Amino acid sequence: MIRFYNANVLTVSDMDINYGEVWVDGGKIAYVGPAKESDTVFETEINLNGDLLMPSFKNAHAHSAMTFLRSYADGMPLQDWLFTKIFPMEEKLTEEVVYTYTKLAAAEYFKNGITTAFDMYFEPEGIARASVETGLRSIICGGTTGSYENAEATVERLENYYNTYKDYDPLVSYRLGFHSEYLCDNAVMQRVAWLSKKYSEPVYMHSSETAREVIECKERHGGMTPTQVFYDLNIFQNGGGGFHCVHMTDNDLEIMRMTGAYMITNPCSNAKLSSGIARLSAALDRGVNIAIGTDGASSNNALDMFREMYLMCVLQKLSTGDAAAMPASAAIKAATYGGADCMKLPDLLDIKEGMTADLIVIDMAKPSMQPVIDVVPNLVYSGAPDVVKLTMCNGKIVYRGGEYTTIDMSKLLFECNDIANKLYEKE
Amino acid sequence: MIRFYNANVLTVSDMDINYGEVWVDGGKIAYVGPAKESDTVFETEINLNGDLLMPSFKNAHAHSAMTFLRSYADGMPLQDWLFTKIFPMEEKLTEEVVYTYTKLAAAEYFKNGITTAFDMYFEPEGIARASVETGLRSIICGGTTGSYENAEATVERLENYYNTYKDYDPLVSYRLGFHSEYLCDNAVMQRVAWLSKKYSEPVYMHSSETAREVIECKERHGGMTPTQVFYDLNIFQNGGGGFHCVHMTDNDLEIMRMTGAYMITNPCSNAKLSSGIARLSAALDRGVNIAIGTDGASSNNALDMFREMYLMCVLQKLSTGDAAAMPASAAIKAATYGGADCMKLPDLLDIKEGMTADLIVIDMAKPSMQPVIDVVPNLVYSGAPDVVKLTMCNGKIVYRGGEYTTIDMSKLLFECNDIANKLYEKE
Repeated sequence: MIRFYNANVLTVSDMDINYGEVWVDGGKIAYVGPAKESDTVFETEINLNGDLLMPSFKNAHAHSAMTFLRSYADGMPLQDWLFTKIFPMEEKLTEEVVYTYTKLAAAEYFKNGITTAFDMYFEPEGIARASVETGLRSIICGGTTGSYENAEATVERLENYYNTYKDYDPLVSYRLGFHSEYLCDNAVMQRVAWLSKKYSEPVYMHSSETAREVIECKERHGGMTPTQVFYDLNIFQNGGGGFHCVHMTDNDLEIMRMTGAYMITNPCSNAKLSSGIARLSAALDRGVNIAIGTDGASSNNALDMFREMYLMCVLQKLSTGDAAAMPASAAIKAATYGGADCMKLPDLLDIKEGMTADLIVIDMAKPSMQPVIDVVPNLVYSGAPDVVKLTMCNGKIVYRGGEYTTIDMSKLLFECNDIANKLYEKE
Repeated sequence: MIRFYNANVLTVSDMDINYGEVWVDGGKIAYVGPAKESDTVFETEINLNGDLLMPSFKNAHAHSAMTFLRSYADGMPLQDWLFTKIFPMEEKLTEEVVYTYTKLAAAEYFKNGITTAFDMYFEPEGIARASVETGLRSIICGGTTGSYENAEATVERLENYYNTYKDYDPLVSYRLGFHSEYLCDNAVMQRVAWLSKKYSEPVYMHSSETAREVIECKERHGGMTPTQVFYDLNIFQNGGGGFHCVHMTDNDLEIMRMTGAYMITNPCSNAKLSSGIARLSAALDRGVNIAIGTDGASSNNALDMFREMYLMCVLQKLSTGDAAAMPASAAIKAATYGGADCMKLPDLLDIKEGMTADLIVIDMAKPSMQPVIDVVPNLVYSGAPDVVKLTMCNGKIVYRGGEYTTIDMSKLLFECNDIANKLYEKE
């Protein structure tokens, strides 16, 4: 059993802070409350000296191994960048590359307070191995693409992946998904909807990331937006969500609200690729569920939830002309509770007894966290990776005071550079 | 003499990276180049193991001691926030508050790689004492305000400050400035222009921060924008600059270009207060000089040049619709060379022999800096405070590996909280 004491505990369901203790036993939170007498023998006792203990960040849209493309082909618009630069490089991917660069992503996630990635990428075995080894929680998301001709085969593969990885490990699971309307024929999406029904599982996909994507979808689908297409095909019958959701009509937002599907926003990626600003204030007003993802390091380029929360808030202030738009608390909730709920991880919603211990400690002695007039805006507007003092995933401390407990960084960086040299010389 | 070896040295005049050494002697850079034999006895030799050594960031618009207002009255538009919340709190300021909270800002600057602040704030003696004590370089900027009636007295005080602080210390100097058109009568600005002529000194002020400011200026000044008013009064006869410059016409940009005055952008503050997005791409195309400031922690809320550079770039991509807008190199140059040049600090422009040793070391082993496909976009798009390994100001190491050499953080935080308790209970 691990005991954190003298902690300020931030619970995100109610955005409340209380002073006390958190005990962790076998991956679960065993106690949250004021200091109490006990005969328990703790293996580790950590005095937080008033530091903030809160739920870890849940990254609700990731392509973790895309760390191998960080700063490659910088400064291009989405469609050109994808088709002329990224897709050709991705053809060189092997399980080993995905495994190694998912570990690099894990190192970045941990130092930045992220314990869970909703990872839509190739080579699921590489993702799964890297997760188990580093202690990262990866919820792998199907990224099926396909034409009318190969629809049956491609969705069969999705079902196989689902059955292989759904209960692979306490740290690894699988959700149904497909890449996007623009890379999937209706026949593929229909079959995914049937899988959703068969397994009572939610479905996720890229949606409405660029204006061009929406225009072309409407041309292909008799004027329907991607969200309308998905609704029409009953894709959201068990919820799920759309990644990006930048160019959404009022009707699209209404579909998301009605179905309970999540708008999974990626403000940094959308900004860097000049895709636009999602209508998050409108979504929040309507009661649409919101989670936050980093997207891949190739389009972001950081895997940093502080930057996402910050950008999410200030872009709403700019786009609505209202400095009060998108309060900091909404960003914190989306980055923690929202992410867990979006991925259907009900044990990861908050710091509560019986829930899984995915948590972080924020160093309140950093000058950027002082003075403590209001902690929540401090986290969003002056928080950055350097305030993360400790990261725990599934009850295990994976990062503390700048050091990793599961990752040999020197060895990993050597392996990453070795792979990069080979991939880029062949370019 | 201090020797850095096995360094990747980034020079920002040419955005070039070369492997070698940097020697620092008595505040100056004594040698930059490949490893060389020497009889020199070094007091300190630091093996950078390939880490990046580059010029420190120069914060070209600051109200350092506004750290005391961090997260206070979060989420309000500029004018209401200033007049109903900030100005009343600032009336409680004393030299001691400014001294203490400037030290808090220094701690934040150092950990974030900033060594110089262009600080327009009250109680210059408090700023100067905090700077000398912590080893921060503060270029204090006059923030004169005044009506027709008190113009002579207020500008006399500015001149006295100028003469007192211009050569106060190697770390402390003073530049002429006034708050803004909206807080100064023409009689004040005219007199500042005469001071500029008398001392051959540049002049700085807030300019065109909000749309409302520009509209009201035009009402007061026969249709002239703030930039036109300043030009008309010959304020920029020796250069200088405008802080913010968000709402600028083509003609305003042309005035900045012709006079060589700097556009000193504050993207984070302008976003948080919903003031708007400066036309930096248009300015860059025209050849207008650009520097970057954090503004105060009350409106930002971080004092973090990584976040400023990042936001500067992505907001241009969003506002122009061009993912190639505002290359990362332009942001790095504005944050280093631009800031130094803007404040008229020709010895601080770059890592060159004979220049002053204001430099930082970037930890390239952080996962967010890997792989090293392109260092400059890595710095701007995945850089954050945690990659700063060492900060040197005026040849002195002020921060290294998370530790301060000139600041007792426990003592400082105690003092800050003591002051905050008193200021906020009196509210």
